[in-house]
Amino acid sequence: MLDIATRVYNHKWQIDSIIRSLIDTDFYKLLMCQSVFRNKPDTVVKFSLINRSKDIRLAELIDEDELREQLDYARGLKLARGESTWMRGNTFYGKRQMFRPDFMEWFENFQLPPYQLEVKDGQYELTFEGRWHEVMLWEIPALAILMELRSRAVTQAMGRFELQVLYARAMTRVWEKIEALRGIEGLRIADFGTRRRHGFLWQDWCVQAMLEGLGDVAQGGAFTGTSNCLIAMRRDIEAVGTNAHELPMVYAALAQSDADLRAAPYRVLADWQDEHSGNLRIILPDTYGTEGFLQRAPDWLAGWTGIRIDSGDPARGAEIAIDWWKSRGEDPRDKLVIFSDGLDVDKIRELHAQFAGRVKVSFGWGTLLTNDFRGLVPDDALAPFSLVCKAVSADGRPTVKLSDNPRKAMGPAEEIARYKRVFDIGTQDAFEVIV
Amino acid sequence: MLDIATRVYNHKWQIDSIIRSLIDTDFYKLLMCQSVFRNKPDTVVKFSLINRSKDIRLAELIDEDELREQLDYARGLKLARGESTWMRGNTFYGKRQMFRPDFMEWFENFQLPPYQLEVKDGQYELTFEGRWHEVMLWEIPALAILMELRSRAVTQAMGRFELQVLYARAMTRVWEKIEALRGIEGLRIADFGTRRRHGFLWQDWCVQAMLEGLGDVAQGGAFTGTSNCLIAMRRDIEAVGTNAHELPMVYAALAQSDADLRAAPYRVLADWQDEHSGNLRIILPDTYGTEGFLQRAPDWLAGWTGIRIDSGDPARGAEIAIDWWKSRGEDPRDKLVIFSDGLDVDKIRELHAQFAGRVKVSFGWGTLLTNDFRGLVPDDALAPFSLVCKAVSADGRPTVKLSDNPRKAMGPAEEIARYKRVFDIGTQDAFEVIV
Repeated sequence: MLDIATRVYNHKWQIDSIIRSLIDTDFYKLLMCQSVFRNKPDTVVKFSLINRSKDIRLAELIDEDELREQLDYARGLKLARGESTWMRGNTFYGKRQMFRPDFMEWFENFQLPPYQLEVKDGQYELTFEGRWHEVMLWEIPALAILMELRSRAVTQAMGRFELQVLYARAMTRVWEKIEALRGIEGLRIADFGTRRRHGFLWQDWCVQAMLEGLGDVAQGGAFTGTSNCLIAMRRDIEAVGTNAHELPMVYAALAQSDADLRAAPYRVLADWQDEHSGNLRIILPDTYGTEGFLQRAPDWLAGWTGIRIDSGDPARGAEIAIDWWKSRGEDPRDKLVIFSDGLDVDKIRELHAQFAGRVKVSFGWGTLLTNDFRGLVPDDALAPFSLVCKAVSADGRPTVKLSDNPRKAMGPAEEIARYKRVFDIGTQDAFEVIV
Repeated sequence: MLDIATRVYNHKWQIDSIIRSLIDTDFYKLLMCQSVFRNKPDTVVKFSLINRSKDIRLAELIDEDELREQLDYARGLKLARGESTWMRGNTFYGKRQMFRPDFMEWFENFQLPPYQLEVKDGQYELTFEGRWHEVMLWEIPALAILMELRSRAVTQAMGRFELQVLYARAMTRVWEKIEALRGIEGLRIADFGTRRRHGFLWQDWCVQAMLEGLGDVAQGGAFTGTSNCLIAMRRDIEAVGTNAHELPMVYAALAQSDADLRAAPYRVLADWQDEHSGNLRIILPDTYGTEGFLQRAPDWLAGWTGIRIDSGDPARGAEIAIDWWKSRGEDPRDKLVIFSDGLDVDKIRELHAQFAGRVKVSFGWGTLLTNDFRGLVPDDALAPFSLVCKAVSADGRPTVKLSDNPRKAMGPAEEIARYKRVFDIGTQDAFEVIV
């Protein structure tokens, strides 16, 4: 039966929107936003889009009007009542009321702030400047919009069946990965693929396939949830995540002296510890070098639940963490190690084999779950690429990120040199940045 | 928007029917039916289901009640007005009014006759006995019902995403075949895959994929149409086909002497020639051995449009036909050779390379288009298998088929021996029957 009303309603759509909700974002963004809202409400930060894959000339692929239309549409979004209820009422990691009433009241009235868009050298210069807790919420939607507009640009000229087969191939690939993961005894894995996803519907499909293929961890399966709040809400699964580099980056940029700078990453975690317990107490140690960060860490940090390894050689990072826990009198077997950098099945299998039993192992699988379209169209035009949106300055001072991979370093050269000195960074091994 | 009416309507379905229309059948069945309706209206024929793949124990896989339900549903079907209009009004191969008014009047009131169903040794014994032009219309629906019930039995326990990936894999496979076929210059190919299709919706998908991937022959593409009338009507493409072995088999069974038997296959074509011209004048020479059939053929047959090669070594069959045309003073380059036996991409490419330019080449692609699920589920439980539904007797006398492959021979042993003698069949090479 033809549903005429639906057809007529669809005809009225101005735009096929990419971002449909303010909670179509990573859970840790909302957690960090609440932390910033409380601890740094007046800090002015500038976020900037950075396409590390220069050969992909986004401004030539994506129509500027369409991009503005999508960004403007996202600016019009407000938190829906059900979304607010879900945030207020849900249990995350067993803790109720993770989002405080004052934060929720603010967020219920929030809309994304203005953006600045220019074109330069075939690339979009897209920046967001304003109060940190407001502009930070642009990061994930901005990335998701650009990724999906690029997918749409590439798929536009394809025929109906050609398209169906494109998705058939991509589905088969994801499913084969899931089948391979099934063979890993005791696996724990989550979707971390919002920011560089092929598209919203595709991420939603991947999450549901993970749920069916691996089973929900609550029912003894291996799938622990998704970082995407909207999908977590709609599919009734756990929203997962903790914190990210932007916190130490901004805290560091605000430091007034070298000593202050050296202490900044720990101040982030001290603020965090005030608010959170359990699975949210996960150390992200690599912003200015994992090894030095842990060596200099205060003892209370060794009591945290675990660590997230997000750059460099992941096995080496985990071994450093294990040694550190031992040196602080902690039993690594009680500790959680979350791997989240450039994962795919082989790497997951390898890391699991190496660390299962020695620590509690978990994986946050990103781009190669939600955007592995490599090799599926001519010129590999749908392959994922390295697009990020980072805090580049705070209160007018540039931010710096070093990480455990010099190719992921960012910031002005003289500041990078200063940070390397302050944080005692020696020679670093370089690793290819896939996505 | 939820279409409540559709949902409620769907709830009322008694069964998810496999055969939805009397024209969900091969075009040549209807052409032959009309011929029989005119020339042999009183002949009583018995059709019988024969599963040549004994290891597939259909009666253990498929529930008998479900089978009866589907067969009974098919018996309730009557020609719809639009279907009748399509049959009466359509141009087939440029000829209007291919179906005569007296035949259409009869067909408009037709319903499938009763069936007999028993279970023996894990197999269904399904037979249809009655007037030839009535029971013959069971062949295709009976096969399609059994094939699809088997598909449903195997897929029943699969999860939603597992199922989606199953079809994703199958779609990818079909599309890769189509992409490979695109590289063959001057290709002409049709869908002949109704009888042993995986399912109706799947055949419909395959046909549409062929249409998009190869292009309609009317617009310069390689896709010449489908044998399935319902799909041809719905997708607005050409219905294709001519005649099959059942005509010579029944004519032969009715023969009263050896001399009469020897002449029977030519009487079939003499009757056919009265009714049809052009692309419908296609010789199917292999029922009792291609070589002898052509040697003994009357000269008027050499004037026919072409030949269909449906058993034995197809290249050898085509060479025999070319030699025969030359011996009768015909130019083979004006003649059409249709290959239709056990085709897949490699075989199509090979035959096209060997014969393009020497004759007009065309392909009727069957089971490995519409049911290539080989290797896609455990135990290969969705692989196509060799199920046929044949006329086994006519007016109480057994039918015999020899073909150019002894493994496809059928009939009582003493009758086979007699037919081999009458038709001068020497030693035949055996070929594996894939589907």
